[in-house]
This record gives sequence, C-alpha cells and structure tokens, in this order.
Amino acid sequence: MKILISNDDGFMSPGIELLTTIMRRFGDVTVVAPDSGRSGQSSAFTIGKPLRMDKVSEEPGLRRYVCSGTPTDCVKLALHEFFADEKPDLLVAGINHGANTSTAILYSGTMGCVLEGCENGILSIGFSQCNHNWNTPLCYLEPYIEPIVRKLIELNPPKGICFNINAPEGAIKGVVLTRQCDGHWGKEFEKRVDPTGRDYYWLTGEFFNHEPDAADTDEAAVQNGFISICPVKIDMTAHEYLAEMEKINWQL
Amino acid sequence: MKILISNDDGFMSPGIELLTTIMRRFGDVTVVAPDSGRSGQSSAFTIGKPLRMDKVSEEPGLRRYVCSGTPTDCVKLALHEFFADEKPDLLVAGINHGANTSTAILYSGTMGCVLEGCENGILSIGFSQCNHNWNTPLCYLEPYIEPIVRKLIELNPPKGICFNINAPEGAIKGVVLTRQCDGHWGKEFEKRVDPTGRDYYWLTGEFFNHEPDAADTDEAAVQNGFISICPVKIDMTAHEYLAEMEKINWQL
Repeated sequence: MKILISNDDGFMSPGIELLTTIMRRFGDVTVVAPDSGRSGQSSAFTIGKPLRMDKVSEEPGLRRYVCSGTPTDCVKLALHEFFADEKPDLLVAGINHGANTSTAILYSGTMGCVLEGCENGILSIGFSQCNHNWNTPLCYLEPYIEPIVRKLIELNPPKGICFNINAPEGAIKGVVLTRQCDGHWGKEFEKRVDPTGRDYYWLTGEFFNHEPDAADTDEAAVQNGFISICPVKIDMTAHEYLAEMEKINWQL
Repeated sequence: MKILISNDDGFMSPGIELLTTIMRRFGDVTVVAPDSGRSGQSSAFTIGKPLRMDKVSEEPGLRRYVCSGTPTDCVKLALHEFFADEKPDLLVAGINHGANTSTAILYSGTMGCVLEGCENGILSIGFSQCNHNWNTPLCYLEPYIEPIVRKLIELNPPKGICFNINAPEGAIKGVVLTRQCDGHWGKEFEKRVDPTGRDYYWLTGEFFNHEPDAADTDEAAVQNGFISICPVKIDMTAHEYLAEMEKINWQL
C-alpha cells in the first residue's frame, strides 16, 4: 500500500511519529506535515503567498517532508507532487494532541487533512486523543490503531465518507461507533489591555455539550473511556430538510 | 431584529457593503469583518497570538468593526463582545467574490462564518456570487437578497441547519433549491524556482465536477443562470453509513 500521513501539530509531534511507525506495517509511507503547529486551521489553504516543501529524510519505505503551509496545503501539495499519477491507497492524519469530537471537526486541521483526502477519493482516517500535553505517552493507543485501520480498509467505505477517530485519556474500555455530538464552544475570549492602553483578546473557550445525556455521541464515548469511530461525510447538504423546503414556492 | 454580518473578503469589499445596505432594512446591523482578505480560511481560528478589534464607524442602527483574525474569529469575537447577553437574530456573510459551490464549502471563509453562527444557534446565511472581479457590479443581486432572507426567516429552520447561497454571473433566471455538488479541485500548484535555486509552489487549481450531468446541484444551478439555495447541516455524521457499520463486530 501507499500511505500518505499528515497532521496539524507539525512534523515534530510525538503523535505523527507513532502514527508513522504503525503505518509502516501497511506499506510505503509518505509524510508531508506542517513545519510547526497549525491547530485550529480547519480546511484553510494558503493563497497569495507561495508554499515551500523540504525533505526531512528518506529511506526505503519512508520519505518525510515538511511544508510551510496549512494541513490542507500539506495534503494538496503531497498529492500534486508525489501522487500525480496514482493516488495513495490511504491517508491517515494525527495522532492529534487534543480531541476532535463534536463541532471540533469544523475547526480541526487534522480533520482538514482527512476531508481533503476524502474529497480526492482516498480512504481517509483521522486520529485524535484527548490529552493536549505534548509529552503524554501515546503507546497505549498502539494496540488499537493498526486493527482499526485494517478493519476500515476491509470495510471499504463508499466515496465521500471518511472517519474521525478519537481516543480517551487513560485505560481504554473498547471501541464504539458514534455520531457527532451537538455542542458549541463558548466563553471564548479573555480580554486584556496592552501597555499602550489598547484592548486585545486571547482565544480560550469552554465546550458546552448540548446533549450531555446521549450515550451514542463521540463526546460521550471518549468521556466514558471508549475509542470513538465516527463516519463523516463531505456532503454537508441537509438532504432531509431539502425535501421540507421543496414544499414551499421559491419563485420570488 | 439584530443582525451580525461578516465575510472573508475583508471589511472594504464591495460585497459586504451591498449586503450591509440591504440588511439595514431588517434591523440593527453589527459588522465585524477581517481587516483584509481571508479567502480560503475555512473555519480556521487564531490561537497562539492575540486578536485585535477596532471600531470603523458607528451610527444609529449600524456599527462596523474590523478584526485582525479569520472570518471565524470575527464571528466568535462579535458574539463574545456584542452579543454575550442576547444572540443576534440573524447572521449573514458575504457577498463573497467567487462562488462557494460544491466542496468549496469546506474551504470557504464565508461559509466558516455561517457554520459558526449555526453552531451558536443563529439563523445563518452565506451569500456568494461567481465573479471574482472586485469591481464587478453586484446590484443585480439586490432584488433577490432581501426576499430570500425574508423567506428563510419565515421558514424558521431547525437548529443545526444553515444556508449556502450562490448566485450566477449575468442575468438571473430564477431561484432553485440544490444539493452540494460532488467534485474536487485538482491541478492545484504551479511549481517555480526562486533566484537561489529553491523550489516554491503557487496554489492555482481547476474544479472537476464529478456529476456534470446532474441538474439539481449547486454547481449546475449557477452554471445554468440560477441562484442556488443549498441547506447545509453542521452535523457531518454519515448517519446512513453508521447503520451499515453497526452490522460489523467492532470488538478488537
């Protein structure tokens, strides 16, 4: 297999290192990751200034490159430069330092990579875990990642579907299928005054779970000690509601 | 009504100016827009550096602010600073210079604003039109925007649903409901060599429509001279596929 790996924490993150080690068991790995952290970059891409991509290392079965752009730029540039003739068989992103449950999927650079892979018709899987600490041991995830990837390869999902996988902190009780939790981020800024008397704002924020009693969400899974597998589709059309809307006359 | 307006082309864009003029007919308008262009910023937010927000003008029924961050930052900061006690009744974003049909929804800063509003339980509508030219006359949209907004207010969609509206270039034949077109962007980079002999890449790209014969897509609508109204949901779970996946044993 040919596997493309990226992330949003940057090429030096422990998460991408572990993911690369595991994915080499599946085939030839190409890593193209941001040159530093790009958390919260969603599916942003770079326009108006050029991108750079530099080789970090190359050995049989593994080439690692670093890119000056966003996570999405990394995937786009890797596909353009290394896979123009034949797409990779698999894209994996992460392992992210911090969960990407609920609406975090909208902001996540890790999931930005995954959505980009999916749009290009590649089986794409994002891995995140709840602990933001850069030095937290991630080896507890190792027994899970390989079998999950094998299972998803075997599943062979239709075009347009990708996966958002989130792992809890601490002991893992099992693996569950989930849906995206309804929630939002609030209390998001801390306002300060700079030495010249001018206001500025730091993003902080707190997650508000709108369905704390639901057991089948990605957020509930990780809170309860389970690895969450949520299938995601890039078609964001509200198809059911479209049918509702069609009952109305839209001639203006 | 209290209306929040933002965009990704920046506070000086002709698109946001026209949208502001139209929306003042609905009530009190607050504009918080990026200080310069932020196209392709998706739902990216700013972490690791502080944000600034400055007043541009204030008069009865209209206050305009400029923010140093992304489109999503603009909405988040506006909600935090101006609507902490009571949410706006409506968020509108745009009018974007360039279409946001098909998978452009994943990259669009305009739709980043809309998704952010939707996540916060606000009726949120994004307007884009196909012409990228900054100076293209937008007044041909004026007879459509007000009635579309009135219709969507009356519709009163459930929480979690927002709208991606795209207008064609030239004469408008009517308004149609659509779904997100399946497609992808390819041939995305132009590789050059700088004066020191080092490679760099400019993002360019070409849209590939995967269903060119479908008439019910957002892309088909604007290509055929119609304004496209596509309902969008922030729950990206592939619910139908989740049911398929549940047939498999996920005990690893």
